[in-house]
Amino acid sequence: MIELIASYLETIGDRPVTSDVRPGDVRAQLPEHPPTNPEPFDAVLRDVVDIVIPGLTHWQHPNFYAFFPGNSSYPSILADLLTAGLGVQGMSWLSSPACTEVETLMMDWMQELLGLPAHFRSTSENGGGVIQGSASEATLSSILAARWKRTDGRVNTDGDTSKLIAYCTSQAHSSIEKGLRIAGIGTANIRIVAHDENFAMNVDALRAIVEEDERRGLVPFWVCSTHGTTSSGAFDPTAKIAAVAREHRIWLHVDAAMHGIAALEPSLRWVNDGLELADSYCTNPHKWMGVNFDCDLFWTADRTSLLGALSILPEYLRSAAAQSGAAIDYRDWQIPLGRRFRSLKLWFAIRTDGTDVFRPLIRSHVDMTQRLAALVAADPRFEIVAEHPLNLLCLRLRGDSPEHGDVLTDALVESANATRQVMFTRTALDGRSVLRFSIGSRTTTWEHVESAWGLLRDGA
Amino acid sequence: MIELIASYLETIGDRPVTSDVRPGDVRAQLPEHPPTNPEPFDAVLRDVVDIVIPGLTHWQHPNFYAFFPGNSSYPSILADLLTAGLGVQGMSWLSSPACTEVETLMMDWMQELLGLPAHFRSTSENGGGVIQGSASEATLSSILAARWKRTDGRVNTDGDTSKLIAYCTSQAHSSIEKGLRIAGIGTANIRIVAHDENFAMNVDALRAIVEEDERRGLVPFWVCSTHGTTSSGAFDPTAKIAAVAREHRIWLHVDAAMHGIAALEPSLRWVNDGLELADSYCTNPHKWMGVNFDCDLFWTADRTSLLGALSILPEYLRSAAAQSGAAIDYRDWQIPLGRRFRSLKLWFAIRTDGTDVFRPLIRSHVDMTQRLAALVAADPRFEIVAEHPLNLLCLRLRGDSPEHGDVLTDALVESANATRQVMFTRTALDGRSVLRFSIGSRTTTWEHVESAWGLLRDGA
Repeated sequence: MIELIASYLETIGDRPVTSDVRPGDVRAQLPEHPPTNPEPFDAVLRDVVDIVIPGLTHWQHPNFYAFFPGNSSYPSILADLLTAGLGVQGMSWLSSPACTEVETLMMDWMQELLGLPAHFRSTSENGGGVIQGSASEATLSSILAARWKRTDGRVNTDGDTSKLIAYCTSQAHSSIEKGLRIAGIGTANIRIVAHDENFAMNVDALRAIVEEDERRGLVPFWVCSTHGTTSSGAFDPTAKIAAVAREHRIWLHVDAAMHGIAALEPSLRWVNDGLELADSYCTNPHKWMGVNFDCDLFWTADRTSLLGALSILPEYLRSAAAQSGAAIDYRDWQIPLGRRFRSLKLWFAIRTDGTDVFRPLIRSHVDMTQRLAALVAADPRFEIVAEHPLNLLCLRLRGDSPEHGDVLTDALVESANATRQVMFTRTALDGRSVLRFSIGSRTTTWEHVESAWGLLRDGA
Repeated sequence: MIELIASYLETIGDRPVTSDVRPGDVRAQLPEHPPTNPEPFDAVLRDVVDIVIPGLTHWQHPNFYAFFPGNSSYPSILADLLTAGLGVQGMSWLSSPACTEVETLMMDWMQELLGLPAHFRSTSENGGGVIQGSASEATLSSILAARWKRTDGRVNTDGDTSKLIAYCTSQAHSSIEKGLRIAGIGTANIRIVAHDENFAMNVDALRAIVEEDERRGLVPFWVCSTHGTTSSGAFDPTAKIAAVAREHRIWLHVDAAMHGIAALEPSLRWVNDGLELADSYCTNPHKWMGVNFDCDLFWTADRTSLLGALSILPEYLRSAAAQSGAAIDYRDWQIPLGRRFRSLKLWFAIRTDGTDVFRPLIRSHVDMTQRLAALVAADPRFEIVAEHPLNLLCLRLRGDSPEHGDVLTDALVESANATRQVMFTRTALDGRSVLRFSIGSRTTTWEHVESAWGLLRDGA
């Protein structure tokens, strides 16, 4: 298995990025019913090589420019192996003490490496961090903590969310609406705040709508500021949002799932600007840090509210140790009860790769994006439609009119992806079709980017 | 790493079951700040052996009788390694087709191996299965689907849960209350239905309370029937509950996280009796099947409601292929967006271990539990306080009075665990202290059980 994985990763660039299977093709190659007798392990491996791998979209491919390429690294892969081998549960401190304590330490290491506010540290008065399965779950946890706080805990009893109002821009990730919906905040109670020409939240618009909601007797309770929107990598102005949030007792969640990890590189620390007054924050080390999914880092400055929302124990059963922070029961910091020993991935990556590996990688992706932007800007058929300080370039074909540009851009995404030599995702910005060129794979070199750009020029 | 894991698992019985660390001990042995330079991999492995492993509770230890021992197996561990190495995302069919298709096939294989109703199969008109991170998330998904269905989808817009009422017994898992709370169903809207002397739901009581709620203008929407309660392994009468549920348009969720996998053994197929009218069902192959956490199997007979609740796409964007079942986008079947290639664990375990490995294991755990029960019954100081058809025996010391028995039983659990030679969990049944003796580890032999029982007799 080790050989298979090493060979897969070391030759991944020789494959097409995507598969040409159609729905049902993979299944049709496998037996419809389970075997009654055990098979040799080699037979399983053969099917992995012959059927499964050819049916994958290769997220670690150097020419994968879709979404945000999912990173992995050998230390993290081996750590996941160890997680599976140990097979322990970290739902409470007692259920495997080292599982909890290594995680807490890793969250404090990451607070330091990312330069996050000290009040997120586990050693602070009321803050702390936890590894969540995904940013979606971190967002939901944040919403639940905010819901609990704004209702003084009453929501746990009456479930009444009817007056609670949440705020984000149209550029916020889909998990925001999903998390709010799950928590009983319907779309009628979600305000889509206007954004500026850079797709960042307009704080005057936020303030106006919050005040209007309060006048109507509604209760603003949660706002999401995104650091790196999925569509265009826009940054909401967190410090200004925080001022409104503080004034109106709104929980401020900063969703930096996309770009928060860039702060590992000191010159990019600005990606986390404005966090001083945030109530919660999340980011994803499977982006840029080689710590394979699942691993989302979630911090809060208010663990009392998080525990209030997610602890299922009545007051009299809460342990003094857990409340004081001496022992943490992470089951009360997350949606599910059970949890794997995920912090090993971070620990292994930080210790054996070290920040000396992450920083040049991040810089190189940013540099390649700027070089690419210069090439795109020099081609009059194309336009760049959003700021691109990091590793995401949003471009489109101009066409004869905006509508014509949409048609051409959609066709370009489709034709480029159809070659299977690259993968891009399409998005819409202010209603206009856009091709996202997202450079985030560990193996991507300038030659790859250049040839992908060549493909786009030819397609144009 | 492979050697380390093999050595850990093959000598696990030589270790104490639990650690003697106190809160903070593990962290104190590790550097408070991240290293600035990479370290050799050997240094990390050394810390795993010297610091991490001694700080664990060993869930795969033969004398681990707490909770439900978490199983793993070499094929599943290697599959998790492969999952990490491939590093693909299965959020949609397109994002890695084989990830979705192998999962769907595994859910159909498991439907067959467990003898579940055909309407849970992915090939059925409106059913299907998905791997969830945990039973907690499966339960929450079920609640959300039910909430959507009972409000004809209105909850997505208005978030109004004020009239929705849910039902379970006091024996239901803590994730039930937690899931309901998350979904905006406060404890005031959760009815704790009376249970009988076997800790199973009293269906007459359910019917009465449902009718009373309807008279008051409330809307019964979700009921949980547990197949194997955590405290005592009780089985709610699902077929009878289904009759009430059907009559009153209540979604019936069957939580078989604890004991559903027993159905792999044909003589124990009864553990899933009554599922014909259930709307959703979940069970855990990390119990008894050697498929290491995280892997919860969740099926629904009504994927329309599940998609209605969890799809974040507006109607006009849903793909015809996904709706028809030709291609499945599992992001719409779960809470988070991202998802790992978890079905490999099931695939590897079923193919290389085969059902011929699972069945004798399950039978041996059940047999050992019955042998143990005979020994306990023969000791007049002890009493068995619940039915024990499977692998969980609930016992307590009689003492001179019920109160005295509680004191003695609590002390027995504490003193037995203090030896670190065993681990038991304590529970309360109808307010009385109980020691749970849960036999579920792959490595447990009769000699282990006998010696653990010797320890309890000595303690008594």
